[in-house]
Amino acid sequence: MKPEMSANIASYLEIHRQRMLDELCDLLRIPSVSADSKHRDDVRSAAQWLMERISELGLEPELWETRGHPVVFAEHLVDKNLPTLLMYGHYDVQPPDPLELWDTPPFEPTIKTTSIHPEGAIFARGACDDKGQMYMHIKALEVLKAQGGGLPCNIKLLIEGEEEVGSAHLAETIQEHRNRLDCDLVLISDTDMISRELPSICVGLRGLSYLEVRVDGPSRDLHSGMYGGAVDNPANVLARMIAKLHDDQGRIAIPGFYDEVAELSQQERAALSRAPFNENEYRESIGLSAVFGEAGYSVPERVSIRPSLDVNGMWSGYTGEGAKTVLPATAHAKISMRLVPDQNPRKLTELCANYLKQIAPPTVKVTITPHHGGMPYVAPLDTPAYQAASEAMQMTFGIEPVPVRGGGSIPIVPLFEELLGAKSLLMGFGLASDAIHSPNEHYGVFNFFKGIETLSVFLNQYSTSSERA
Amino acid sequence: MKPEMSANIASYLEIHRQRMLDELCDLLRIPSVSADSKHRDDVRSAAQWLMERISELGLEPELWETRGHPVVFAEHLVDKNLPTLLMYGHYDVQPPDPLELWDTPPFEPTIKTTSIHPEGAIFARGACDDKGQMYMHIKALEVLKAQGGGLPCNIKLLIEGEEEVGSAHLAETIQEHRNRLDCDLVLISDTDMISRELPSICVGLRGLSYLEVRVDGPSRDLHSGMYGGAVDNPANVLARMIAKLHDDQGRIAIPGFYDEVAELSQQERAALSRAPFNENEYRESIGLSAVFGEAGYSVPERVSIRPSLDVNGMWSGYTGEGAKTVLPATAHAKISMRLVPDQNPRKLTELCANYLKQIAPPTVKVTITPHHGGMPYVAPLDTPAYQAASEAMQMTFGIEPVPVRGGGSIPIVPLFEELLGAKSLLMGFGLASDAIHSPNEHYGVFNFFKGIETLSVFLNQYSTSSERA
Repeated sequence: MKPEMSANIASYLEIHRQRMLDELCDLLRIPSVSADSKHRDDVRSAAQWLMERISELGLEPELWETRGHPVVFAEHLVDKNLPTLLMYGHYDVQPPDPLELWDTPPFEPTIKTTSIHPEGAIFARGACDDKGQMYMHIKALEVLKAQGGGLPCNIKLLIEGEEEVGSAHLAETIQEHRNRLDCDLVLISDTDMISRELPSICVGLRGLSYLEVRVDGPSRDLHSGMYGGAVDNPANVLARMIAKLHDDQGRIAIPGFYDEVAELSQQERAALSRAPFNENEYRESIGLSAVFGEAGYSVPERVSIRPSLDVNGMWSGYTGEGAKTVLPATAHAKISMRLVPDQNPRKLTELCANYLKQIAPPTVKVTITPHHGGMPYVAPLDTPAYQAASEAMQMTFGIEPVPVRGGGSIPIVPLFEELLGAKSLLMGFGLASDAIHSPNEHYGVFNFFKGIETLSVFLNQYSTSSERA
Repeated sequence: MKPEMSANIASYLEIHRQRMLDELCDLLRIPSVSADSKHRDDVRSAAQWLMERISELGLEPELWETRGHPVVFAEHLVDKNLPTLLMYGHYDVQPPDPLELWDTPPFEPTIKTTSIHPEGAIFARGACDDKGQMYMHIKALEVLKAQGGGLPCNIKLLIEGEEEVGSAHLAETIQEHRNRLDCDLVLISDTDMISRELPSICVGLRGLSYLEVRVDGPSRDLHSGMYGGAVDNPANVLARMIAKLHDDQGRIAIPGFYDEVAELSQQERAALSRAPFNENEYRESIGLSAVFGEAGYSVPERVSIRPSLDVNGMWSGYTGEGAKTVLPATAHAKISMRLVPDQNPRKLTELCANYLKQIAPPTVKVTITPHHGGMPYVAPLDTPAYQAASEAMQMTFGIEPVPVRGGGSIPIVPLFEELLGAKSLLMGFGLASDAIHSPNEHYGVFNFFKGIETLSVFLNQYSTSSERA
């Protein structure tokens, strides 16, 4: 890319900075919580808002209905000899609970400075995950169009509204519109980088198994005085069952759990360990007195190349103010497992469900409801896409990015590979401190604009490098 | 008591049946939930409603303010040579949660027939515990006054509004009004009997220790993908801690827990085992596939002469619809222990709290908040009060009542002994199937009127037998 173009991009972003921020804040005001049926109309409003912004770019967006929330699609075909990039993102967000822990309301975006973000960060649910990051894609297209040369390659935008509920209907939508979705590469900005000073590219993701456990004991809530001692309490039973999911060494105790876990070579582990890590800073950033986990692996390894199991929610009996002496009739837990290659989510869900049923005492009935799952994923580094991304980041950040493996799951990444035959490039600009899925989620203003700039450069580099390849 | 008086009582109740039921329903309509601060005014309304009914009897009720909900007091002194009976009850009720399991609204009393109650039962929160049973006391006074002979002994009414929150301010109220509360016996109707065919008198209660546990891990909710595997999840930690509260044999595993438990002699166990018990019926009445508990003790023993430990409430993380991949910052449980002689609630709370802190891993912070507690209690059988109660029941039910020990706790019973030097007579008319503290709580219309009749007879018998004694 010519140096003057890079300067033009920076200058364009400077001029249009406030408007772009205002646009993002407009989107963040829409409470598009896909998991909560009472926000159904809000989710659709967010999709319609996006359609308007995409129309303003001269594209003709389409609203693809699904059995759940709709998908926004748009395409801009330049030249069939140029590569085609499918830019994926999602406009739905996680529920904002617990509301009382937000310093500012989750759907009233507020820009505040922090120690990490002296220029300010936008605080709102979805600021980083994924409205802020997804909107960088759209703004990168605006930037490139404004340069006068048009888009450097064929572009397809695919923005869904169900990522936070496991992309429940995306596979069938892709299959329905399969002929519109041919592409050479999927570009996703829904991950984070090491720091503002050290960019990184995510080259691996953990998979996900998620299930809900319900333990039924007596047919109704009982008085704990009249029945306590003769009735196996479902809350105590569930606690005993959850306790048996790990052994004393922090390893997961489900028989067969580790059977398909691919062990990395010392060389691979060494390559990944180049990413800087400071345990004290890590602990302090999340207010932890001590880290935890599987013996024999570093903290970064425990959250990337090793699987994990967590209770995501648990409830039983009386949870209000004061003391109620109830022996609850039921107890519930939401439990998820993060998986690594070559673990299969369906098989792991089954292993966990069978184990839970096996360890349940005969005094209760256990019901397991599987939620969505996702395959783990590893991306190759020796591709034109990775090279173009690496070059773009080197230009805009002034330093070569580090390849890292992420702990989260983006189930659609393996899905794109299966249904479209395309690899994904995970070029995210978030930070671990952005508090995604938590109260006070935010996204740095620096990250937002650096992302737009880098993505604009990347599109040029990718187009050129693909021609080279 | 003369036979014509017994007939007069029955006839009076027949004539005034509908009005008395209407009065009780009026009281049940007031949602006097003492645990919930938003019902503060409702609790007071219930006290005021009672004042009006007591005034109608010609007594002059007093509203004693406390630092919490008020106490209703009234007295009727006949003759200082006659014995003085303190009739205790409570007008507050348990929270109605979970609301969705009620067939009719908890504060809209509805009379419906059931297989146990062919004449109908009143369905409402507090129908049995304790509004229905407490109101029998007031109606028994009305019945005796209507007989023309006045009351057979000195009567004091003490009706509090904080029993369901551990009678938080009753001790200080008693101390403040100590000179008004001299009595020979406390009469309480807040327990149940074996069946409509076989009355019983409660001669023992379990004590209570209640505490709340809070486990704090990271300083905020985390993304379970980004952190899962390196952070000890507070929900998993709490589950492990709760699991360690029992051993594999269903015994409580807190060191020293059983040290002060008084073992009953074979003779005492044999006497108590005369109360009929059918395990199949018991299981079916609460929809249980199998009973549970300490080896070496029968089911009735496990819930009366043996202590127990139950989780009353437990919550952590995301408990809404769908799947949220959060690693929660905190986890909570409400845990209570039912105690037997000679266990001390304060000591047991401390033992449990220390044990929980001791078994907590260094990755979390554990905070324990003790709620109210209560001493266990055993009542003697060789007293004029027990004899009078036994005779009264024999007259109205046609069969001698069985002495039983109850599993619940009425912390004020040992409190009365300590502060007033008076024993309590626990003459309750509820049934185990009344679902107190549960959805669809109800109280048999038969039980309500049989209770009023029996209490009226008892007052006469007690007065006479005390003179004999």
